[in-house]
Amino acid sequence: MANKSLIEETPFSHLAVVLVAARNPLNIGAAARVMSNFGFQHLRVVNPYEVAFREARSAVGAAALLKNATQHLNIAGAVADCSLVVGTTDARNRKLDHDLRPLSEGVEAIHRHLQSGRAALLFGSEKRGLSNHDLSYCHWLVHIPTQEEHPSMNLGQAVAICLYEFVRGFNTAPTGRKQPSATSGTLDRLSAILRDTLCAAGYLEKSHGASTDHKIRRLVRRLNLSARDADVWSGMLRQVLWRMQSKD
Amino acid sequence: MANKSLIEETPFSHLAVVLVAARNPLNIGAAARVMSNFGFQHLRVVNPYEVAFREARSAVGAAALLKNATQHLNIAGAVADCSLVVGTTDARNRKLDHDLRPLSEGVEAIHRHLQSGRAALLFGSEKRGLSNHDLSYCHWLVHIPTQEEHPSMNLGQAVAICLYEFVRGFNTAPTGRKQPSATSGTLDRLSAILRDTLCAAGYLEKSHGASTDHKIRRLVRRLNLSARDADVWSGMLRQVLWRMQSKD
Repeated sequence: MANKSLIEETPFSHLAVVLVAARNPLNIGAAARVMSNFGFQHLRVVNPYEVAFREARSAVGAAALLKNATQHLNIAGAVADCSLVVGTTDARNRKLDHDLRPLSEGVEAIHRHLQSGRAALLFGSEKRGLSNHDLSYCHWLVHIPTQEEHPSMNLGQAVAICLYEFVRGFNTAPTGRKQPSATSGTLDRLSAILRDTLCAAGYLEKSHGASTDHKIRRLVRRLNLSARDADVWSGMLRQVLWRMQSKD
Repeated sequence: MANKSLIEETPFSHLAVVLVAARNPLNIGAAARVMSNFGFQHLRVVNPYEVAFREARSAVGAAALLKNATQHLNIAGAVADCSLVVGTTDARNRKLDHDLRPLSEGVEAIHRHLQSGRAALLFGSEKRGLSNHDLSYCHWLVHIPTQEEHPSMNLGQAVAICLYEFVRGFNTAPTGRKQPSATSGTLDRLSAILRDTLCAAGYLEKSHGASTDHKIRRLVRRLNLSARDADVWSGMLRQVLWRMQSKD
């Protein structure tokens, strides 16, 4: 029964819920349970603190979903096949470089995207939320409208609210097709070529730090490239890079 | 701080969240936590299974709210001062005598009521939900749109979703910091640098036609650059171009 529903095509077959560095297996189980409540299937877990999360008793009625969850060593692997990556944040005490949308508006945009490509919705760890490294993989962010004095939500509750917002607006799901967007893996390759090009040009130090890589990744994400345009840019940069190297 | 907010008049000062016969103190704590996240103050607990619920560790940031929760022996006492009593249900396997509304519609009606009177929102026990006795105190019911095969929600998550629906309408959002977009003139200059760079790299013929210029212009327009990002890209390309030319 549960296995059958896991392979069925549903409105949310192309959305992955990604939990990054979750510490408490009960929260992973609670996320699985509410996914099952609302008809979501694909759970991806990046670097969980406890590897025994698959036995979480809190996953009432969602054992199959939890069993089928995929586990990833890093966030790049978890979102490589997604052409839209959206992070969740309480948006306090952090200088954000990202476009930040109210949950309702963000979910509407994700809905539209799901008609032409895969999307991932990211949740950070209970203590710290998403790190700057995690955020550098995101196209934009959504936030839940909590009180300023009490922004910190329980992870299972945050997942519940976000997924509810999807089923809530279900009848009003808009239409309209656009070019398929570039996947996260494609954007990573483009970012790498850009980085190499900038190093070869002397714009970047060869020994630049991780924060520079994050900046480049975000810069490329903000372009909202279609798969086709991402190929064009990669081709152009490759040629430029080749030219600079061949002259050395 | 927390005590101050407990006596302040807020949009939700007249709404009580009532948990009837909750078994797990962690769920009571989770309800308190999300109430605090969304600015609700009045928690009422009817016949909890464990009386030590006030120590629930799950009430992160909501200790004061939990301390101020009132405890009641029966539901009549818990809702005596309320002029609207609304129950929550998954509405399965039960012959309901009540008007049943989707959560969004129900919350709108409760909102209207709060302008003139007190209201209570009731949640039943984890195992059985609200009993027929509990339901007999309700004016009508709301339900969360879960999947037919997996209707049973975690109590803390159900409370979270219902309260989110209340604040959803209010945009307390730190508004998305949308960067000003690049002007057409800026994009033209960027397109020109890109063209020169691609010529220098041998990607384009120096004697390319106007239609190639058009393609480049459209490619750059599709990036939807902010003014700041357009400057960054121009700077990068200028450096790349300079590097290629200096090597000729």
